[in-house]
Amino acid sequence: MKIVILGGVAAGAKAAAKAKRLLPDAEIDLYTDDTHVSYSSCGLPYYIEGNFEDYQMLLVRSPEEFEQKGIHIHLKSKAIKILPNSKQVLIENLEDNNSYLVKYDKLIIAVGARPIIPDIKNVNLPNIFTLRKIEDGINIKQMALKSKKVVIVGGGYIGMELLEAFVRQNLDVTLIENSKHVMPSLDDEISELIETQLESINNGRFKILTSELVTEFCGDLDGVKAVYTNSGKCIDTDFVVLCVGVRPNSELAQDAGIELGETGAIKVNEKMETNIQDIYACGDCVEVTLVIDGSKIWMPLGSTANKEGRTAAMNASGVEDKFYGVLGSAVTRCLNLTISMTGLTEKRAQALGYKTISTIITKYDKVGYMPDVNNITLKLVADEKSGLILGAQAVGAGDADKRINTLTSAILAHMTVDEFYKNDLTYAPPYSPTIDPLLNAAQILTSKIKKLNN
Amino acid sequence: MKIVILGGVAAGAKAAAKAKRLLPDAEIDLYTDDTHVSYSSCGLPYYIEGNFEDYQMLLVRSPEEFEQKGIHIHLKSKAIKILPNSKQVLIENLEDNNSYLVKYDKLIIAVGARPIIPDIKNVNLPNIFTLRKIEDGINIKQMALKSKKVVIVGGGYIGMELLEAFVRQNLDVTLIENSKHVMPSLDDEISELIETQLESINNGRFKILTSELVTEFCGDLDGVKAVYTNSGKCIDTDFVVLCVGVRPNSELAQDAGIELGETGAIKVNEKMETNIQDIYACGDCVEVTLVIDGSKIWMPLGSTANKEGRTAAMNASGVEDKFYGVLGSAVTRCLNLTISMTGLTEKRAQALGYKTISTIITKYDKVGYMPDVNNITLKLVADEKSGLILGAQAVGAGDADKRINTLTSAILAHMTVDEFYKNDLTYAPPYSPTIDPLLNAAQILTSKIKKLNN
Repeated sequence: MKIVILGGVAAGAKAAAKAKRLLPDAEIDLYTDDTHVSYSSCGLPYYIEGNFEDYQMLLVRSPEEFEQKGIHIHLKSKAIKILPNSKQVLIENLEDNNSYLVKYDKLIIAVGARPIIPDIKNVNLPNIFTLRKIEDGINIKQMALKSKKVVIVGGGYIGMELLEAFVRQNLDVTLIENSKHVMPSLDDEISELIETQLESINNGRFKILTSELVTEFCGDLDGVKAVYTNSGKCIDTDFVVLCVGVRPNSELAQDAGIELGETGAIKVNEKMETNIQDIYACGDCVEVTLVIDGSKIWMPLGSTANKEGRTAAMNASGVEDKFYGVLGSAVTRCLNLTISMTGLTEKRAQALGYKTISTIITKYDKVGYMPDVNNITLKLVADEKSGLILGAQAVGAGDADKRINTLTSAILAHMTVDEFYKNDLTYAPPYSPTIDPLLNAAQILTSKIKKLNN
Repeated sequence: MKIVILGGVAAGAKAAAKAKRLLPDAEIDLYTDDTHVSYSSCGLPYYIEGNFEDYQMLLVRSPEEFEQKGIHIHLKSKAIKILPNSKQVLIENLEDNNSYLVKYDKLIIAVGARPIIPDIKNVNLPNIFTLRKIEDGINIKQMALKSKKVVIVGGGYIGMELLEAFVRQNLDVTLIENSKHVMPSLDDEISELIETQLESINNGRFKILTSELVTEFCGDLDGVKAVYTNSGKCIDTDFVVLCVGVRPNSELAQDAGIELGETGAIKVNEKMETNIQDIYACGDCVEVTLVIDGSKIWMPLGSTANKEGRTAAMNASGVEDKFYGVLGSAVTRCLNLTISMTGLTEKRAQALGYKTISTIITKYDKVGYMPDVNNITLKLVADEKSGLILGAQAVGAGDADKRINTLTSAILAHMTVDEFYKNDLTYAPPYSPTIDPLLNAAQILTSKIKKLNN
């Protein structure tokens, strides 16, 4: 039995380890165009921030550890063609440009995603970076250490995490977002709140420009020097990081006749099988089911990739396993703020055809007399008629991350707001007010729904 | 319409405020033998610890605020007899010892609980305290400020919270628990872990003695001087706090013909009605339903009291509302440790007749390279056959409180471990490992259950 895995960051690395554990005698070969394998890509902003000095902390398992387990790791080896009929993959050695064919019994595609490079004049100037791989992190950190000013293009998760990292590195930071607000995937009130709350702790070290479009980079062979925007701004900078999103690496699969989904990522079933026999796919290159309504979304995340890699490996190894999908849960930190969500935002729910009802409250995260008390703002969204919880967003300097997970369970269980209000959450002054903000919001929304349906 | 409320800490105060909001024209009178009304009893250990200087921070609403809303507060006024036939209550003014009768249309009993005074020789010596009311807190704090040594009798929630408070006040603390372990309501492995983890950060300032029984207090009219135990120890001390539990104040109700439950606390239905018409009861003097199996338990907690007070007031005011019960959720902090639980412990589940299966894991609370990473230990208990989640306990220096709430939703929804494993929890390096300990535990327990049932 020979299992070939393409890609080795989260899903691929997990799949390799799991398959070897299930089938100790199988030959397992992992090919990646990367120079590293099995690392925490999500940790790169924290490395740049200086939370730890050695980037090797980001490595989960080294190639040597894989080899010791009998898993062969082929770095700088890019899969350039899959031949399903002969069950082979064409691999190109990126060091000597030689290509060779590899046979497989089972193939697991985990080739991930790549940063989008926006079509902006001079985007290829030196010192304009994207952040995805270990090298990107090392390069950006080196640049940050010798710079005074940086421009971040894009205010999504990575952009906001880099804002924190660069502010902590004492750089002058300008973040430019072309949408109306940063974190544009969230509802407007929440995004606005993020902006006002960040502004309230701004020490003059960072600027957030919204509804602003980068029109041109300006510089020379030494690198980018300034960023021009559509409103006529010219922002001097020492370097730029582009964080305008990622795109699934689905071309290799598509070229082999593997079906893509409506999102443009690879289509798989619950067993992570593609439409071609013996070919599985997992991680950031596949689309997932949104458990709430069964729709397909593309939401690349390390935690999801990990689970999918496990499921793909189990099925490829002959042990049935299923991955049912996601709830759209995510969390990030930007300076003192935690930003967290699960399920559908109100705008997304409405776009999907739901008639929504919602409430937004700002409350203490613990009892008011505790010295470290802080505010959190919570938005709870439900279906107007049934009262079914559709999603929640939380933001604040207070404890806003794990509270959202209390709702992920509720959404997974298809609970109504009314049912959730019966919850018995833990209470003690250092951890929560007598009535937790979650219950507070549920109570308000329950009353609203009752009034409406009476 | 006249609503009379007996007791005014959490449930009574909440009931008064809610009833007035619903029935602005009703006459609402609240009688309490206490010198304060509407305060956070749970906050007293944090006041003693010095988290804030003014005990008035503990007051939610002052008697004046109640009066402004038209609610009459009668402090130091003890209800000594309820006369259901004539719908009257006999009140004794504790200042002048005069008694008088008060008419009611609806009566809400919220007289709470009182500390158990163990039957130990010389237990009535000066400077032996219990902690329940504001005065207790003020007295203990004054004593702590002028003392060097203290003995805490009892290692439950309050005992552990006071251990923290006194250690932070730089006292030499000895905590004596007669059970095998502190926090005896938890499973043994968890209690043991609490002891070892606390010992590992012990700077010589505190001693925890378990399986040790206090046999005698020794002292004179100036106060207690030493504590003797059954193993022959004699512990010098400046003062003692007894934390051996509380008991519901159910005598007044029983004397009036109100039915008590099997737990000895007042029996109520979901509308917080007693067996006598127009008499409601709520807060620490009533028993509650454990939602998991419908059994009755007595679990006095401020958060529960608050909800019950609201429900009692609504029904007394003619607006139907139900309180369905609790899941047994609780949390506390002792120094660097968070101790949290929901549902049934394994021993309690077994005592109730469940055949249980469980797993206990110790994991990082966030990704290992984050500077503030810490361990948490999580025990997950399920029904062996059905896989239904029965309960969970968490302890650790890491983020162990809100994670338990993710499981309260799951228990409320009657989820199996397998279903819970499908959960999509938020992930980012500052908040959780790629695979959250909750999912880790669910995965292990799912495999165990599958193996067993195959």
